[in-house]
Amino acid sequence: MAKEYVNMRNLRFVLHEVFAAENFSKNPYYADYTKEVIDMTIDTAKKLGDDLFFPIYTEMDKKKPHLENGVVTVHDDVRKIMDAMGEGGWIAAPASAEEGGQQMPGTLYAAANFIFHAANTSAASYFGLTTGSSDLIRTFGSKELNETYVPHMDSGKWQGTMALTEPDAGSSLGDITTSAEPNADGTYTIKGQKIFISAGDYHSAENVVHLMLAKIKGGPVGVKGISLFVVPKYRPENGKLVNNDVISAGVFGKMGMKGCPILHLSMGEADNCKGWLVGEPHKGLSYMFKMMNGARISVGMMSTALCSAAYHASLEYCNERPQGRPVSNKDPLVPQSLIIEYADVKRMLLFQKAITEGCLSFVTQCAYYSDMEKISEGAEKEKYNLLLNLLTPIAKAYPSEMSVLSTSAAVQTLGGAGYCDDFPLEQYFRDTRINPIYEGTTGIQAMDLLGRKIPMKMGQGLMLYAAEINQTIAEAAGIESLKTHAENLAKAMQKLTEVTMKLMGLAQSQAPEVFLADATLFLENAGIVSIAWQWLKMGIVAQKAVGTANGDEKNFYEGKLAAMNYFFLYELPKSAALCERLLSDNRLTLEVKKEYIN
Amino acid sequence: MAKEYVNMRNLRFVLHEVFAAENFSKNPYYADYTKEVIDMTIDTAKKLGDDLFFPIYTEMDKKKPHLENGVVTVHDDVRKIMDAMGEGGWIAAPASAEEGGQQMPGTLYAAANFIFHAANTSAASYFGLTTGSSDLIRTFGSKELNETYVPHMDSGKWQGTMALTEPDAGSSLGDITTSAEPNADGTYTIKGQKIFISAGDYHSAENVVHLMLAKIKGGPVGVKGISLFVVPKYRPENGKLVNNDVISAGVFGKMGMKGCPILHLSMGEADNCKGWLVGEPHKGLSYMFKMMNGARISVGMMSTALCSAAYHASLEYCNERPQGRPVSNKDPLVPQSLIIEYADVKRMLLFQKAITEGCLSFVTQCAYYSDMEKISEGAEKEKYNLLLNLLTPIAKAYPSEMSVLSTSAAVQTLGGAGYCDDFPLEQYFRDTRINPIYEGTTGIQAMDLLGRKIPMKMGQGLMLYAAEINQTIAEAAGIESLKTHAENLAKAMQKLTEVTMKLMGLAQSQAPEVFLADATLFLENAGIVSIAWQWLKMGIVAQKAVGTANGDEKNFYEGKLAAMNYFFLYELPKSAALCERLLSDNRLTLEVKKEYIN
Repeated sequence: MAKEYVNMRNLRFVLHEVFAAENFSKNPYYADYTKEVIDMTIDTAKKLGDDLFFPIYTEMDKKKPHLENGVVTVHDDVRKIMDAMGEGGWIAAPASAEEGGQQMPGTLYAAANFIFHAANTSAASYFGLTTGSSDLIRTFGSKELNETYVPHMDSGKWQGTMALTEPDAGSSLGDITTSAEPNADGTYTIKGQKIFISAGDYHSAENVVHLMLAKIKGGPVGVKGISLFVVPKYRPENGKLVNNDVISAGVFGKMGMKGCPILHLSMGEADNCKGWLVGEPHKGLSYMFKMMNGARISVGMMSTALCSAAYHASLEYCNERPQGRPVSNKDPLVPQSLIIEYADVKRMLLFQKAITEGCLSFVTQCAYYSDMEKISEGAEKEKYNLLLNLLTPIAKAYPSEMSVLSTSAAVQTLGGAGYCDDFPLEQYFRDTRINPIYEGTTGIQAMDLLGRKIPMKMGQGLMLYAAEINQTIAEAAGIESLKTHAENLAKAMQKLTEVTMKLMGLAQSQAPEVFLADATLFLENAGIVSIAWQWLKMGIVAQKAVGTANGDEKNFYEGKLAAMNYFFLYELPKSAALCERLLSDNRLTLEVKKEYIN
Repeated sequence: MAKEYVNMRNLRFVLHEVFAAENFSKNPYYADYTKEVIDMTIDTAKKLGDDLFFPIYTEMDKKKPHLENGVVTVHDDVRKIMDAMGEGGWIAAPASAEEGGQQMPGTLYAAANFIFHAANTSAASYFGLTTGSSDLIRTFGSKELNETYVPHMDSGKWQGTMALTEPDAGSSLGDITTSAEPNADGTYTIKGQKIFISAGDYHSAENVVHLMLAKIKGGPVGVKGISLFVVPKYRPENGKLVNNDVISAGVFGKMGMKGCPILHLSMGEADNCKGWLVGEPHKGLSYMFKMMNGARISVGMMSTALCSAAYHASLEYCNERPQGRPVSNKDPLVPQSLIIEYADVKRMLLFQKAITEGCLSFVTQCAYYSDMEKISEGAEKEKYNLLLNLLTPIAKAYPSEMSVLSTSAAVQTLGGAGYCDDFPLEQYFRDTRINPIYEGTTGIQAMDLLGRKIPMKMGQGLMLYAAEINQTIAEAAGIESLKTHAENLAKAMQKLTEVTMKLMGLAQSQAPEVFLADATLFLENAGIVSIAWQWLKMGIVAQKAVGTANGDEKNFYEGKLAAMNYFFLYELPKSAALCERLLSDNRLTLEVKKEYIN
């Protein structure tokens, strides 16, 4: 078992030195969150991670949940963790004090979640889902729903879930068939099937509260007829919890994330499943998407957390494992070298560091915009809203896709040991593979970015994004050692703009399929540019600090600069190949007949 | 469960249309292998794959081997498969008729192995290891060792293994500590530990024959003191099999390839483990490397086989799964489209097809060179030997690295279902992750390519390689529709040469660490160029055939051309970024201090 899973010095660097998160405390709403409170918060999260989450990471994988006689049994400590998260106020942390929350800035909450997920992403999923679903009720639910459900969820006693997917409706939510029939008492009778419902049932939850999409009978077809319901496992009736006819029909076997079961749920087999409408009828998808945007950024953070944990396990091994000798001195009588001494191993470590820390900064940037939106007014608010909207699909997709490669590099540094389960590396690799899939696959994010977010408000989001990046470039251009990187980022940004112009031209003149055909490559390129931007931002801070730093602090800043250099030397150049393809007029993937793919 | 795992039409295309394998029958040694026999051979392999291998692919993963009371229990059908492979003559197929083999050309044997591994790579590993180790005894062992072991191994009754790795010696074999002390009777007493020994023991093998590296006491240090021994689980003594003190100390848990156990073996705990020297003392590594080169190409083939199986499962799903609607017609009343209709899905399928079929052709190219070397004389023989040597690390590394991405794309096309074990995709992804590790990691292959194979014989290998590629380019340049691809491949080859010159210059003037620092990128680039070459080769054949083809045949050739176009449009451009880095004078990974990586 590895000893570490996050770099707390780096987390403080991001929060304080890059984003100056303590500045939020100047706003009355966030007044409590001084630098000291921020540090205390992440230290508390780290202690929870160390004490409760991390020790059972591999155990939860090996003793995976099982369904027997209708009961899903999960690891015993899930109860302990949910209680601790409830008692510590973590589940309701983003809510206002008035609503029983901590008014915690999203920037800080993201950092805490980074710690929890790096320590044990399956375990952290339980409370993360509860946070998201209790927030939905709080935001859109009636007073009665709030009073009935939210306190139990925020305490961790009742589990919350997001119940969207059905056997025939995954990416295409408009095609769900779960039905809701109005009853005289204002409730609805629910009937249908849901699959892949994370934490959808388990023995140690007092109740499970599904935030479920369903269609009210007689409503509009497609996405315009989707409504959101609270569908509990047990419904409160006359002060008692009564079985609500939600049956756990199956637990899916899966590659990873085994500590948190995904359920097949069957509602209304005995015609006795009741649901409570959240908000207005037929507006369910827009409610869900408010939550979904946050969830997408969370997936980016979870992916980054797994990169971090794998990186630290890999780094530890490379610092301890002697193997072979330098090519310039292969004398077998000389003791073997530590593998961290080899350039190829250092390359694999710098890759992981560049991805982990670059993505952490980028996802934090999104949380920062979200907080700024919350505390701003007027044009300022609109600006942050647009930036956040634009960056959300990138923050979901790039870290998740790269986490597969980054954890794979971590596996590789261990050689055969990386493939074996005496080390956690193979589990990180398996666990993170879900991230490019759930909360909208990479393909879906790509359509969202290029098809919706880029054209929104006449391209204002992209202009604001370019302005943010140009500001960083301008600052870096004044620092001798960063000049070349600044120029290269400027070129990449210019190319991104050129590609966007070309594609928007196609959007005017051709069917939407044409300009969207390579949306996934567009998204990947936007990811590379975004992370390069974050690295330049971090590089400016590190370059200013490194001169006067000593000892571990000097090593820290030098490491920052090395990882920045890695990204600019090894990753940014990949942008060119993507743009070359994006500028091509060859329509291969559109025009190839499906019969040719054999 | 998917229905198909290989495209037999494509296998015949590669064997007959690209490599004209029937031409080998003009040579007396391979006279039996007419076109008909070749087809019959792969059809027989396919039938074995269908009947014995494929049906238990997922079952072998789920009911994984376990060690109890010193006995390793594996899937019952392993016995059935080994018997069938022995009876069918598959284990000794590459050996001469005189030696009890089939004199099968390596080109054809590779194709058969492609089928077996695509059907069930864990199951196929058992006999593949036996083939390799019985071949070692046959080639280098005494008459007595041959008579004692080879017939039992070729029949499949006795399992063969390669026992190289130790807890403190993986990539660095010179550091093994397993010792061999000569006895008066000519045998050696063996003492030591081996780890990660595939198929190293199981209940249904009558005996296990380890081809084991050990050091004779008092011999030279390092790699020059490594000898090769036959160390059986049971040693034949007076017509009986006697326990040889090789203890199964543990079975490693691992990410995939679960159907075939990897063992921790302990030899000589009771000072009663005997070994028999193979060939001369201290020459073990060179013997092992004769086998190892073949094994490395096999890993390339196994990786390709997993790409193939995952591709077919993915393709099947995409042809059956309705989800969503075209962006230009989202009317929810219209039935959902099959996902294969979407450009992004077609892109992921073409990627898999381009990797699978490109790598299959490339690995077959290596087997072809191996056969040509065998049947040639003089300068011709030398030419094929150099080409084979040069391409071996590329054939091991590129398919294995790309198989992780290709099976990952297969997972992605299924969305959430790809992550679940109701479908085999997640298993293909897990299974193939070992391929970039064993038989020498990608980093080791990179050092081999750039540090040994490129400089060998004053760069003759590279010149021959360039000549082969230029021949294909010249032919393609005469076909209008292939002209641009030919030009782009020529440019990439020119760039590869430029990079090589630059690095060889560094090799003259600097420490070897300097020119080798980015060897892995050099290897990746050589992989991209090699596969582009194969695609152009296949493109020439397909372009000539497509005009007169009809129906399925037309679709087949059009598919070939589409996958070729995919590789040239989406993959070849990646070469530029690699070369940019390789031409840079920045020595980041060499110069970064390990303290900075934190």
